[in-house]
Amino acid sequence: MSGVRIGLLGCGRIGRMHAELLARQVPGAGLAAVYDVAEGAAEALAGEFGTRRAASAEDLICSADSDAVAVCTSTDTHADLLVAAAAAGKPVFVEKPLALDLGEADRGIAAAEAAGIAVQVGFNRRFDPSHRYVRDRVAAGDIGDVHLVRVTSRDPAPPPAVLSLEASGGLFCDMTIHDFDMVRFIAGSEVTEVYAAGAVLIDEAIGAAGDLDTAVVVCRHANGAISTIDNSRRAVYGYDQRVEAFGSAGMAASDNPPVASAASRGPDGARGPGLPYFFIERYIPAYVAGWSAFVAMLGGAPSPCTLADGRASLALALAAWRSVRERRPVAVEEIG
Amino acid sequence: MSGVRIGLLGCGRIGRMHAELLARQVPGAGLAAVYDVAEGAAEALAGEFGTRRAASAEDLICSADSDAVAVCTSTDTHADLLVAAAAAGKPVFVEKPLALDLGEADRGIAAAEAAGIAVQVGFNRRFDPSHRYVRDRVAAGDIGDVHLVRVTSRDPAPPPAVLSLEASGGLFCDMTIHDFDMVRFIAGSEVTEVYAAGAVLIDEAIGAAGDLDTAVVVCRHANGAISTIDNSRRAVYGYDQRVEAFGSAGMAASDNPPVASAASRGPDGARGPGLPYFFIERYIPAYVAGWSAFVAMLGGAPSPCTLADGRASLALALAAWRSVRERRPVAVEEIG
Amino acid sequence: MSGVRIGLLGCGRIGRMHAELLARQVPGAGLAAVYDVAEGAAEALAGEFGTRRAASAEDLICSADSDAVAVCTSTDTHADLLVAAAAAGKPVFVEKPLALDLGEADRGIAAAEAAGIAVQVGFNRRFDPSHRYVRDRVAAGDIGDVHLVRVTSRDPAPPPAVLSLEASGGLFCDMTIHDFDMVRFIAGSEVTEVYAAGAVLIDEAIGAAGDLDTAVVVCRHANGAISTIDNSRRAVYGYDQRVEAFGSAGMAASDNPPVASAASRGPDGARGPGLPYFFIERYIPAYVAGWSAFVAMLGGAPSPCTLADGRASLALALAAWRSVRERRPVAVEEIG
Amino acid sequence: MSGVRIGLLGCGRIGRMHAELLARQVPGAGLAAVYDVAEGAAEALAGEFGTRRAASAEDLICSADSDAVAVCTSTDTHADLLVAAAAAGKPVFVEKPLALDLGEADRGIAAAEAAGIAVQVGFNRRFDPSHRYVRDRVAAGDIGDVHLVRVTSRDPAPPPAVLSLEASGGLFCDMTIHDFDMVRFIAGSEVTEVYAAGAVLIDEAIGAAGDLDTAVVVCRHANGAISTIDNSRRAVYGYDQRVEAFGSAGMAASDNPPVASAASRGPDGARGPGLPYFFIERYIPAYVAGWSAFVAMLGGAPSPCTLADGRASLALALAAWRSVRERRPVAVEEIG
Repeated sequence: MSGVRIGLLGCGRIGRMHAELLARQVPGAGLAAVYDVAEGAAEALAGEFGTRRAASAEDLICSADSDAVAVCTSTDTHADLLVAAAAAGKPVFVEKPLALDLGEADRGIAAAEAAGIAVQVGFNRRFDPSHRYVRDRVAAGDIGDVHLVRVTSRDPAPPPAVLSLEASGGLFCDMTIHDFDMVRFIAGSEVTEVYAAGAVLIDEAIGAAGDLDTAVVVCRHANGAISTIDNSRRAVYGYDQRVEAFGSAGMAASDNPPVASAASRGPDGARGPGLPYFFIERYIPAYVAGWSAFVAMLGGAPSPCTLADGRASLALALAAWRSVRERRPVAVEEIG
Repeated sequence: MSGVRIGLLGCGRIGRMHAELLARQVPGAGLAAVYDVAEGAAEALAGEFGTRRAASAEDLICSADSDAVAVCTSTDTHADLLVAAAAAGKPVFVEKPLALDLGEADRGIAAAEAAGIAVQVGFNRRFDPSHRYVRDRVAAGDIGDVHLVRVTSRDPAPPPAVLSLEASGGLFCDMTIHDFDMVRFIAGSEVTEVYAAGAVLIDEAIGAAGDLDTAVVVCRHANGAISTIDNSRRAVYGYDQRVEAFGSAGMAASDNPPVASAASRGPDGARGPGLPYFFIERYIPAYVAGWSAFVAMLGGAPSPCTLADGRASLALALAAWRSVRERRPVAVEEIG
Repeated sequence: MSGVRIGLLGCGRIGRMHAELLARQVPGAGLAAVYDVAEGAAEALAGEFGTRRAASAEDLICSADSDAVAVCTSTDTHADLLVAAAAAGKPVFVEKPLALDLGEADRGIAAAEAAGIAVQVGFNRRFDPSHRYVRDRVAAGDIGDVHLVRVTSRDPAPPPAVLSLEASGGLFCDMTIHDFDMVRFIAGSEVTEVYAAGAVLIDEAIGAAGDLDTAVVVCRHANGAISTIDNSRRAVYGYDQRVEAFGSAGMAASDNPPVASAASRGPDGARGPGLPYFFIERYIPAYVAGWSAFVAMLGGAPSPCTLADGRASLALALAAWRSVRERRPVAVEEIG
Repeated sequence: MSGVRIGLLGCGRIGRMHAELLARQVPGAGLAAVYDVAEGAAEALAGEFGTRRAASAEDLICSADSDAVAVCTSTDTHADLLVAAAAAGKPVFVEKPLALDLGEADRGIAAAEAAGIAVQVGFNRRFDPSHRYVRDRVAAGDIGDVHLVRVTSRDPAPPPAVLSLEASGGLFCDMTIHDFDMVRFIAGSEVTEVYAAGAVLIDEAIGAAGDLDTAVVVCRHANGAISTIDNSRRAVYGYDQRVEAFGSAGMAASDNPPVASAASRGPDGARGPGLPYFFIERYIPAYVAGWSAFVAMLGGAPSPCTLADGRASLALALAAWRSVRERRPVAVEEIG
């Protein structure tokens, strides 16, 4: 293996995807070792990609065969693993969300900052070429001052088993967290206030667990812009991911790439192909580009998704929950 | 002139447009007489279209040469003119908004209902083929239960002179009123709660007048759906009017018709034509279709935009203002 | 009536359309008188639009109530009517094709040129905003040297009765004539050679009459460009009209405007509205713009569609017929 | 390595691409060995992908470490290598064109058929999801009887050095060969006659070599359909690849996938991203799908691109050359 050797912590669905990308598709990077508390999952991945199964997270983090660590474990372990990587002086890729409460997040951040390790949080959408086109227009000044941002983010189906609110942080921490990052990324300005309206329209069991499956969020930004997010856990037509920036000089918007660039016409009108099913089908090129940015970060480039970005999105998710519970707009500074 | 003879009250910008449509483009209707308190404006229109200039609103409403009355005067006169038309037993087309307070609106509605006259409120967007395509998909069940509605509604430029808040009712009564009608029309369900976030990002003079030039509104509907509206008074790229319905079985969305269906490609990417400048450039076919529906209503069909629709949108506009002032979601029933 | 007063010769389908446009929609023009050898048709139009029914073509052409003449009669009368209008010194709008043989065409052209009357041939597509966008890109140099032109031109249905080849000139003179004009217009260069391949795939009766219902034509232009035209008499999905220019610096293409700018998505993919049914549904704005150009021509502007344009397209149609019969590319100079 | 082991002959541009796909991206296949007469090229590839460099083509074809052979060498060697693989009983993937004359092609075909080996010709576009969408609509009957097919196929730039006509077979054998395959694939019917019009508009050196850089081809099919192909060696806006089928029941068309699904609007109209630069940027997923079909073929599925397909496209290319030289439509049976 040439290039950066990555040790992977967590061999579940998202961990497997990262393993495959690192082993086969990311230029300048490779998969060095894997670990999961579920031994079978780690064993399977190690076999499939011909890599070492580490004896423990400690072993993986401290071993000389890994230049950096990818944290793809359950959210409640992220802070501890950040602390451990910081202690070992290893750069970290950490999946979102950083944590489910700000205290935990701050513990990990403090350790990382004290150790001076490079960290990238897994906000893959920043690397999608369509969303980036919008961001680039904003950055180039083509939009002028940003006044409005719109994010549509709808999953094709809820998670197979209803997530516990404690483990997942619910809709805002688990799913909307990406959209909170996108409104900050697109607007280029911090959010100061959040208003959220949620509903349970898809599955009563989600509501019974205290969670939401449908939501709209309105954010006010420090620069005066107002952004809106709309979420659903079940878009029967596929993964729907669009962002839009509107401002004093114009607008830019991303759309979903269709699975085929084709259409037909008949006496009953036009027909066309559907959308990518979910994030794996849509965002693989974005994940690969994210890993390339990680490799560049190890070479000295700034982190494209910092710990501060990770903390900020978590704060917005927590503000959204408070807004739903108290039925009022919530200033982000209330959250801490 | 054959067909329905319409007497026109109000010869300003919107009145002139209706005059031209009635005189030349609406099958089964014609322009019978015009009146405006500004004699010159009425004289000019009468000359241009070869029609009678009535001596007074009373004269126009009561005269036998008009089968029906179009009320295109300033908003503060709408209720009085509805009452007068009701007294004369004449059907009425009345521009939006119905009034600027619910008491006035209710006075006009009560008179119309007591007299049993047919009334159509000027919500022209219901007749736009693109928005109607979305509504038709909802009505056909293709969307299933509606969960989310999105309306983007951006004017190309603020009114040339800053409107007084008293005369216009401000952004929500003057501009968003159409969007409130659209979310009700598309969702097929009444709004029960309104949250609005507004800003002054375009022209400080608008803010100095107590008004807004940028806003986002979130509505909760009786059927559980949540809708969002985003407004700006200045989209430098043209009149931007889009609606979207999302539900349990799919989604449908309207887009802006370009001024030409064409595009070019060069080494720097793709280019294409702009959007229609404003409502005249986009919605003439919708206005004509609206008048055809008016003709059909006189023939016994139900009103496509009832006084109840007019009142409901006004109530939502007033709720939005209260939401902005009190920084909280406002139940529509608080408004009356 | 203010503006230019037009006398209309020919009250069939296309004549009725022009009558309506002139009477109601063309700024600066009006309908002065109508004539048709079928008295009933003329009577009906005169009644509908409140205009005079002329006693004869002569009467209409020579009468002082018409400033100009619109020739919308059957093709075999075009040359005679051009000659008569030339004799009366009246400007002429003449529908395509100019004639069915070049001798007839040249007779009309010679008379018009000798008299110095202004003449516009009815190539309405030059005024369509989408096709014009393509032409404008070429004219602006955005395409560079034009190398390839593509025209797709498909009718929704063949004429209700099979046209006699003698009266209509068949597919190439009746339908493709517009496309021959478009390739010249878009490429900005004369055609020097024509190759045509035709087929009868829709209706055997069309073939029995010696005509074609499906065809592809390849034209070589003086500037080196090669253009292709594809035609069908029956596109079940509506009127399909697209042009494309490709060159050394880029490309530009027009598409069909949909009847609604909207679409929907469901589990089975995307759906959208159909196309305009036929030329009336698509090209009314182009016809109105063409009449505005006619008014401008009467005011001194150059003809936007000259007699030379009309003759050139006819020559290409005749070359296409020879190519089909002799199964070889035909130099246009062979045709005369 | 698990799955089918492929030995690669030819380590030039296209060979390198296949090597990378086989080594990393094709499920169920792997790269077993490489060979090139240029030892350095083979050495480099063997090093990069950790695979064996064979001592000779014979060695690679006959060695037990390869289950099948990929022929990516220069066209003049294809027939010999097919014969050698047939002798070894090894299945073959062979790049297009099969040969530059039909005698050579038939020699390879005869050997392969006598040996009964499975062979797939490299018509990658059949596996592109957008073009396949069109083919699927035809196959599903949504288009009805196919009447017209259109193929636009434009490269971004001519080959860096002017190809010799003898080695490459010129435009029709080197580039249009794919489009000949597409019109047969889409129409589902053999071509019986070819008319071609060519030009040299981009680079005089191409003309000096006896070749063309711009062309239009018209094909008549056995089922009555007429297809058109337009080619350019230099589309400055990127690789332009579109197909369209039109028939008695409707139409279907593929378009180019943009590099980003996004657009912007400003006072000057709309802008959008460009196209993929060339075949590598556009067709990687198609190549991967083609290799998956190869794997399936080894498992018993029919060849998706047969030797007969390869021969048919070559015959059409040769007919096109004769048409250009003799300036007439050429029956395919004239070619043999």
